[in-house]
Amino acid sequence: MEYEEVVTTRRSLHEYSDEEVTEETIEEIVRQATFAPSSFNLQPWEFLVVQDDDRLATLAEVANGQEHIEEASATVVVLGDLDPSRHAEPVFEDWLQKGYIPDEETKGYLVDTVDGMAEMPETERRVWTNRSTALAAQQFMTAAWNQGVATLPMEGFDDEALVKAFEIDDSEYEPVMLIAVGYPADGADELAAERKYRRPVDEVVHYETFEPAGETSLDGDATGDASAPADD
Amino acid sequence: MEYEEVVTTRRSLHEYSDEEVTEETIEEIVRQATFAPSSFNLQPWEFLVVQDDDRLATLAEVANGQEHIEEASATVVVLGDLDPSRHAEPVFEDWLQKGYIPDEETKGYLVDTVDGMAEMPETERRVWTNRSTALAAQQFMTAAWNQGVATLPMEGFDDEALVKAFEIDDSEYEPVMLIAVGYPADGADELAAERKYRRPVDEVVHYETFEPAGETSLDGDATGDASAPADD
Repeated sequence: MEYEEVVTTRRSLHEYSDEEVTEETIEEIVRQATFAPSSFNLQPWEFLVVQDDDRLATLAEVANGQEHIEEASATVVVLGDLDPSRHAEPVFEDWLQKGYIPDEETKGYLVDTVDGMAEMPETERRVWTNRSTALAAQQFMTAAWNQGVATLPMEGFDDEALVKAFEIDDSEYEPVMLIAVGYPADGADELAAERKYRRPVDEVVHYETFEPAGETSLDGDATGDASAPADD
Repeated sequence: MEYEEVVTTRRSLHEYSDEEVTEETIEEIVRQATFAPSSFNLQPWEFLVVQDDDRLATLAEVANGQEHIEEASATVVVLGDLDPSRHAEPVFEDWLQKGYIPDEETKGYLVDTVDGMAEMPETERRVWTNRSTALAAQQFMTAAWNQGVATLPMEGFDDEALVKAFEIDDSEYEPVMLIAVGYPADGADELAAERKYRRPVDEVVHYETFEPAGETSLDGDATGDASAPADD
């Protein structure tokens, strides 16, 4: 599909068909998702794919009972690595081999720099890994849609219950979001529903100085294309 | 361009031509970027576009002197709104008008729910806005590439100096990342350079249980397509 069609037609979907999304398809979606950039190419993302009915029920339970988690073919727990340095060694070895850096000394300096990042306070590491991992998560959702696979991103879950139920060491990894994955149900109502409001472009773009629009009304600032409504 | 081509050919670029990226093009990129999803469709993102030479020099100064900030046609400060409730009123009014919710009472309940989110501790609001805004930032970078416009995301800057220099109220908004924007220079070396390593798909995908791969070597787990190298 053309890029613009993918991003402007993608919608968050709650109604799925019974057709299974195969592991091959999920892995192709992840492959494309991980072309996202990350600081120093550190790639602090992990994708826990839950397909088993009992485990999906557990996941729904820790996510406020959201039933589409169980109805989807799979729900993916997108995890962010809280340790920026975990993959520094192969990443910088790759830079060295491909000539991005001149020598072992430079590699050592970069490894040290990233070891320093790993010493950031926990809050900064949380912010960093959430931000980094979200870049790949967005590309996961659009890559899926390009394969005909619908997604539903979810932030509403009990972190502590989730890491406990799935035996995740939360001193090392943080659940960033859940993404339900499935083929759209035939005639899913949501595909026909009018798209939701998007804040107009001239409200979110600022030149040179930042003067936020503050509270706005639905049709206050909307002009032309800028007000094209979109999906949630 | 086909979706897959956009996401697999996009590269972070440091070398730009002198051709200006027009405001019209930037606004079209932002329009497509903001089709990204957000919790309750709250859209906590703002894009501060810096094009003026003096202001670009200031921006470079607070970002460790990264010279591509000045060489690019523009550098965008992607800001995250720390107040989830700021746009709740028009967002839920839209839901009501389009039949996503049945009545004013439900709308009031949703507004109250989001007002509750706005009471989250500062750390949780930072994590939330960084994550939410990064979704749109990733789509900004791929939408740009689809228009022939290269980007360079940057996390390395002095937050406090940046908000001071640009008079941003950091109790309300947080600089999430910088994105340099420009047309690629003719024969930019980076476009010809071998793509950087990506962690293999079978290392980042986990089924049912999460067992991280730990430290890996460059060619340890790589198999077939999964190891296809990509860009930073």
